[in-house]
Amino acid sequence: MGKEYFSIKFENDNLIFLDQTKLPLEEKYVTSDDYERISEAIEKLEIRGAPLIGIAAAYALALSIKNASKEVLIEKFNLAFNRLHRTRPTAVNLFHALNEIKNVFEANKNSEDIYQIVLEKAKQFHQEDIDKCERIGFNGLAIFKKKSTVLTHCNTGKLATGGDGTAFSVIKKGFEKGLVEFVYADETRPLLQGLRLTSFELERNGIPFAIQSDSMAAVLMQQSKIDLVIAGADRIALNGDSANKIGTYNLAVLCNYHNIPFYIAAPTTTIDNKIATGSEIEIEIRNKKELLTINGIQVAPNHYETFSPAFDVTPSHLISGIITEDKIYTFPYNFIK
Amino acid sequence: MGKEYFSIKFENDNLIFLDQTKLPLEEKYVTSDDYERISEAIEKLEIRGAPLIGIAAAYALALSIKNASKEVLIEKFNLAFNRLHRTRPTAVNLFHALNEIKNVFEANKNSEDIYQIVLEKAKQFHQEDIDKCERIGFNGLAIFKKKSTVLTHCNTGKLATGGDGTAFSVIKKGFEKGLVEFVYADETRPLLQGLRLTSFELERNGIPFAIQSDSMAAVLMQQSKIDLVIAGADRIALNGDSANKIGTYNLAVLCNYHNIPFYIAAPTTTIDNKIATGSEIEIEIRNKKELLTINGIQVAPNHYETFSPAFDVTPSHLISGIITEDKIYTFPYNFIK
Repeated sequence: MGKEYFSIKFENDNLIFLDQTKLPLEEKYVTSDDYERISEAIEKLEIRGAPLIGIAAAYALALSIKNASKEVLIEKFNLAFNRLHRTRPTAVNLFHALNEIKNVFEANKNSEDIYQIVLEKAKQFHQEDIDKCERIGFNGLAIFKKKSTVLTHCNTGKLATGGDGTAFSVIKKGFEKGLVEFVYADETRPLLQGLRLTSFELERNGIPFAIQSDSMAAVLMQQSKIDLVIAGADRIALNGDSANKIGTYNLAVLCNYHNIPFYIAAPTTTIDNKIATGSEIEIEIRNKKELLTINGIQVAPNHYETFSPAFDVTPSHLISGIITEDKIYTFPYNFIK
Repeated sequence: MGKEYFSIKFENDNLIFLDQTKLPLEEKYVTSDDYERISEAIEKLEIRGAPLIGIAAAYALALSIKNASKEVLIEKFNLAFNRLHRTRPTAVNLFHALNEIKNVFEANKNSEDIYQIVLEKAKQFHQEDIDKCERIGFNGLAIFKKKSTVLTHCNTGKLATGGDGTAFSVIKKGFEKGLVEFVYADETRPLLQGLRLTSFELERNGIPFAIQSDSMAAVLMQQSKIDLVIAGADRIALNGDSANKIGTYNLAVLCNYHNIPFYIAAPTTTIDNKIATGSEIEIEIRNKKELLTINGIQVAPNHYETFSPAFDVTPSHLISGIITEDKIYTFPYNFIK
């Protein structure tokens, strides 16, 4: 078991965060009460993972008025709100968090304790995420019929959320209960979240693991080494079709062929009421540089064409269960509109 | 259409070879008549691809006696033979090529023209490979029922063989006949032969292409963008089970799920008479550094465990056809013992 780590922590009116760009080779924590520095951290992916970004932004917005006099309070708050709003274009959790804080600010801006009130809201927001991760992990225990070897994809742990994560929380709880004995983590091209981040989390939790390239998962299944697969989700349609990091659909097809259970773990906030089926989920195409350069090193010339979707959509019939903080849903999924 | 390129060429009693480690960012040709320099080139992967290694080694062995006097002829030849033998441990073509040249040397070592005799054998060896590639490409044309978009894996072209390649030869011929309109090339982790080498060959042949990570192929198939998949093979069992670069089996399973034809292209010398089924093919596990470092840059610490097979075995029932220089074989495969 390695030493403890955290992705963010609020302490002595400062946010302490782990610079994830340096992982896993270096573990560097940054302490700041400056919303500008925290905005930069979100932009540079020092802080990443949709839920975690939201929580960090909520703390940063509270910190923006820590020492504000009455005269500049509203101006300072609005400046920080707009700055944080610009950090990442697509993370829905970010906008949700900023708006929740803003509502509390608007309702209490004449109070002497406005900083404390807003800070309490940010802390509550953080605590809710911790609780959800905990319940996802607990509910997920039911998927382990025996001591299991699990395969996972991308990063879904403490480095992506406020608590122990989604799919990773299930793995961690399973390991603590003696139900998970080994984890195979996909490296997760192009950004290598599995190789860089999930590996770090597995090691720090003392969970035995190995890393493989995404193309090697099929061989592990062919050799009967995998009991089940768990991945996270970025967005879930009302029929259960699930969008997640590119490579997830590939795994679901492989599980189908090899008769291996395939689970998604995500909070119910991931279910999008406006989306009936996966076909309505727009697939973001990423910058070709993510494929043509690796860790900043040019491997192939920039004029090469690439096909580089950020995520893919797994049809619900390939999903054995969706593990949420409420319960495990199973096919057919009919989430309420 | 880009300018012409070649992997090796014998000219004016010198071997000219393309340094493949610098591709695709730099195209550097090296001219040498020194078997030691050519041995180093094979060791450093400047020259790679099993058939190409064999041909380069044959030329290098001939060059070792270019200016040898009678007194030192046998000693020089044996020194070079042993040196070349040590360059790569597993490439069967290498040992086959060296032994063929040795047999000719032994039978003619008292001849005044021994260098020319041995050189002719090396040239014949090279020409036979060129002819086989040509016939594989021609036979492969039958798989295109219409103007097709093809997905391929790893590198199987001029950079891997003496001629136009195996799977790549089929693609090239198909493009020349107007039967291939676009190629999607897997980047092929961990060594990125698709991103670095196949991309270079596609561009130089004027074939429109895009590169995707191995995990993205599934989405291309889900979106009905792929008409068929062609890959090479390293070894084929008598029942048609085919070992090839890691990631090939994944593609075969994906093709099965999406009802997409999956072809292997390889010379009949790839069929191993001593192996009845794929279960007898030993899977080489590669050094973990191939996953933990990328293009020489450390991404994760060396103590992490990895699962890193060099190749995988695709069961024959998932293979729509095996394209050889003789003909296209189809399931059930019963190659003659």
